[in-house]
Parts: sequence; structure tokens; C-alpha cells
Amino acid sequence: MRLVTVAAAQMGPIQKADGRGQTVERMIALMDQAKAAGADFIVYPELALTTFFPRHYMEDQAEVDTWFEADMPNAATAPLFARAREHAMAMSFGYAELTADGRHFNTSIHVDASGEIVSKYRKVHLPGHSEFDPERTHQHLEKRYFEPGDLGFPVYRTLNGLFGMCICNDRRWPETYRVMGLQGVEMITLGYNTPSVNSQKAAEGAEDRLFHNRLVLQSGAYQNSTWVVAVAKAGNEDGHPLIAGSLIVDPDGKVVAEAKSEDDEVIVHGCDLDACTFGKETIFDFARHRRTEHYARICEQTGIVEPPETRQQD
Amino acid sequence: MRLVTVAAAQMGPIQKADGRGQTVERMIALMDQAKAAGADFIVYPELALTTFFPRHYMEDQAEVDTWFEADMPNAATAPLFARAREHAMAMSFGYAELTADGRHFNTSIHVDASGEIVSKYRKVHLPGHSEFDPERTHQHLEKRYFEPGDLGFPVYRTLNGLFGMCICNDRRWPETYRVMGLQGVEMITLGYNTPSVNSQKAAEGAEDRLFHNRLVLQSGAYQNSTWVVAVAKAGNEDGHPLIAGSLIVDPDGKVVAEAKSEDDEVIVHGCDLDACTFGKETIFDFARHRRTEHYARICEQTGIVEPPETRQQD
Repeated sequence: MRLVTVAAAQMGPIQKADGRGQTVERMIALMDQAKAAGADFIVYPELALTTFFPRHYMEDQAEVDTWFEADMPNAATAPLFARAREHAMAMSFGYAELTADGRHFNTSIHVDASGEIVSKYRKVHLPGHSEFDPERTHQHLEKRYFEPGDLGFPVYRTLNGLFGMCICNDRRWPETYRVMGLQGVEMITLGYNTPSVNSQKAAEGAEDRLFHNRLVLQSGAYQNSTWVVAVAKAGNEDGHPLIAGSLIVDPDGKVVAEAKSEDDEVIVHGCDLDACTFGKETIFDFARHRRTEHYARICEQTGIVEPPETRQQD
Repeated sequence: MRLVTVAAAQMGPIQKADGRGQTVERMIALMDQAKAAGADFIVYPELALTTFFPRHYMEDQAEVDTWFEADMPNAATAPLFARAREHAMAMSFGYAELTADGRHFNTSIHVDASGEIVSKYRKVHLPGHSEFDPERTHQHLEKRYFEPGDLGFPVYRTLNGLFGMCICNDRRWPETYRVMGLQGVEMITLGYNTPSVNSQKAAEGAEDRLFHNRLVLQSGAYQNSTWVVAVAKAGNEDGHPLIAGSLIVDPDGKVVAEAKSEDDEVIVHGCDLDACTFGKETIFDFARHRRTEHYARICEQTGIVEPPETRQQD
């Protein structure tokens, strides 16, 4: 048995006016709860330090940059790093990253129990749009404020296993899990900020959004025989509701823990990384069963290419 | 609206001693029911003409070949083709194909209302093993009796839309749906023969198997915004139980119809192919959102390649 006791630290809403110091205090309180529950690894949401600012349209880049972190750790997060070291607890959280050469990414990091950043991930599948869209009920400007991640989906060794990260919309794409599955991943962690209503389909409300959230997390876990830990920022941010439903999913695709609230809440589960072995060696033994000679479109083609019209039936 | 009224024609068990004539009579009875329910397209299971013979270990190739069809249509299936033309109904079913040059495939065909075979599919992801395995509670010798399909996952035009096929174990692999999604598929049809117990994990019974069946069908439909019609051969074949649970799933990943029995049973649903458009143009607009530069492992690598040991933590 290779046990990792993981805490999914769901966070309730962060209002636009809230300071990072105030938010980090909430994160530390969640960490203390996770420690008391025996966790050795805590996972926070995407963009954990601020409100989900991509819903706000901004034209002034200096204003945009106030939502980003130029260093990590920095003054605001130093107390979080300090408490993690004190608890000898590994952690992962998301933040908006501004690089030294002025690039912007939607990023998450995995910090080990000694405080070292062992891996960084930059969100690959940015949803939404880049210009103000008057047709939408609310804006989703990730394609405006971030560039797509340039680090791929690295899998790394820590906590006696093979770990990987993705962020929010990445979880809807089977390629995300598969690229990590092909590196033997045993636990994928991710955070999300998912509006409770589809901005382009008013009839699709929170129930549907939670259904899709579970569906993609469970199938990604099962099809790659890996643990998946998915952590929401939830609740009402300045009038904009986000779904909750943080989940821990086992390598058989079963939900083993689920958040009950739309607020700050810790769910904890003892995950045996050895539970990934059975699926990887039988039904999903990639080496025996995958047929890459028929997959070329997945890598060679970005959009849809329909078949020619020659066989059109009446 | 582009309406296709589809019938999923689940079949109860076929015993080893049953003749093809007897089975085709059952298929015709299901077709008549489907016609009465307004269907214009009927889908039968994988290897619909016989028992699931890959559970039986055979060494004599002449005996193996008795389970295969050298022509299609042939004498046994001619009455089925005739009734379909009479009803002006399209149909799809699976059978074991023996080619003129002696090759063996697990095949399905789509026949249009005029009786023309508009597409053929040969199963790509063969599960199981090729030699007798004394460790298993039952044999699953698809890798012994078939070679992997050589036709890829073609999408073809018929019934005023874009259709594709896969077979049984293919449905567990996200690559299957994605390769067809990248051709704009609007309805994927498939049949399956799925043992109710995992031959390598006795604790995994019918409830788990039905859960995984739904999970992969629903996520494949949602992630590619396509209808999926999945049809079981079910029930107890010579002491070997198969799951039922035939499903019709909409492009939002929702189950819209589900078989109730483990026997011959038709479920019918009117499927609007235009319902695929919303997903394909928004959250799963592949051209805007996919990032193929990070997918290379999916096509270049069959099995797992773990990261190097250099960052191993204690």
C-alpha cells in the first residue's frame, strides 16, 4: 500500500474587493482542518488567491496585472508556505502567473512537504473568448487574459507516486487525462471555477453543470486508472454563482468523497496509489490494447474535417 | 430538425446450439416491433448472429471458422435484408467476418433503406487474450480469433447526417469517440457482449459493469457532442451471464432511453441530429479549443513511459 491522505480544500466565494491576505487566512484555516484530519497533501482551487476575475472585462493591462502574481511564493502567500512546512504537508493551488518576461498563464503548482515547488502546470485548454461578447449572460475572458500553457501535462514523482495536474476546463478533454495516463499517472489534481449557468444556454443550470463535472472526472479516472481530486471555488462571487461539488474519484471511476456545501469545506480521503495497478495491467493495459495507427487525427487535426459529400444519401 | 428515429434492438442470450436461422427470426421480430414504433433505423448487437463464441477455447481453425460469415448478405441473413427493404428501414448489426483471403475480423455494417451496405467497421480494440488462461474465471479469446480492425473509424453520410460505428470494448477508449468526433460524427452506434463478471476480479459484478458501460458511453457522447446508441446481447448464454443495459445517449451526455430487461427488447427514440450543433460550436468547438501541440504522446506512444527517477522524493 502506498497511502496518500489527500484533502480537497473547497473554497467558498471570494469577492472582488477581498484582499489576498484575507483569502490566505482562509486557506490556512482549511490547512489546519486538513492536518487535524490526517492529511499529508492539500489541494486548493484554480485561481485560489482571488475572485474569478476573467468574468470582468478590462482594457487596461495595468489593471489586469493587479490580479497576477509575479513571484511565488510572495508576501501574500508566504504565511501559507510557512504553515505547510510547519505541518510537513504537501500542497497544490492555482494562481494567475505573470512571468519575468511579461507572459500571463493560468497556473498551478505542487509544493512538497519541505516547501520546494516540485512541479508547475500552465492551463492548456482555455475556455471562453477574448473580446467583450454582448450575446453572453456573463463574460468568460480567459482567452483574453491568458495565453495557453506551454509546459504540456508533465507527470512527476512525489509522495511515493506519480502525480499530475490540470485546471478546470482541461478536465472536459479526454486528451488531458490520456497524456498523463501515458506517463503512468496515479493521482491527478485540479481546481475549477465553473459558473452555475452556461453563458450561452440559459436552460443549462447548476444541476447539469454538476452532472458534467462528475461525468468527465469519473470517466477520466476510470479510463486511465488514476485517482482524480477536483476542487471547486464555489458560491456567489459578486452576484455570479459558481458550482461546488468538489470530488475525490478512485481509479475505478467511483466517487469516494464529495463536498456538501458551497463554502469553505475540507473533504479528506486516504488514497492507496497501488489501487491504480489493476486497471493499468488489465482492461487498460495500454501497451497491449491501444492501436495508435488509427489515432492520427487526434494529433494531426485541430478542428473537424467532415467526410466528402460523395456518399450523400437521400 | 433532422430526425432519426432509432431503435436499439437488444437481444437476449443466444445459446451455442442455436442456429443462425432461429436467431435471424428473432431479429426480424425485433425489426417488426421497431417498425411499429416508427423507427427508420435499427441497431443490433455485436456478433448478433451467434453466441459470444470467443468465450470458448478452440484449437481447430475449421471449427473456429464455423462461427464466421464468408459473405454478407448470405443465405442466413437474406430474410433480414429482405424485411429491412420491405420496411424501408436502415439497419446495423455485428458479425464475425471471414474475408476471401482468409482474414478474420469482428465486424459491423450499416445497411441503408435500399439494402446497400454504406459502411463497414472492423473492431479496433480487441480485449482479452490469445492463449488459454487458467487464471481467469472464463476465457475471453478475441485476440485469438480476430485480428485488429484495419479500416480505422470511418464517418459516413447517411440518413441526412454523419454516422460512425464502433464495437463493444472500443467504447471504453476515448480515442474511439474522438477520432469520429474529429470527422463531425452525429450518431455513433455500437453493439456489445459484456460478461457480467470481470474474469480477473471476481468482486466486480454486474452493477459495476453497468456503471462503467454508462460512464464511458455518456462521456463519449458529451465530449464529442454526438448521439450514442449502444446495444447489448444480454442474459445467460450457456451459463455465462452478459450485462444488458442498452442505452440511447443524447449529445449532452444524458440517457434518453434504456432497456429494462435482459432479453429481446426494442427501445426507440427520436433523435434530432441538429442537437449536436450547440456543443460542437461552443464548449467543444475543437478548432478553437484543442491544443494538439500537447497531445503527441497519444499518437506516438502505445504503452506507458514513466518520467525519470531523478526527482524521486522521500
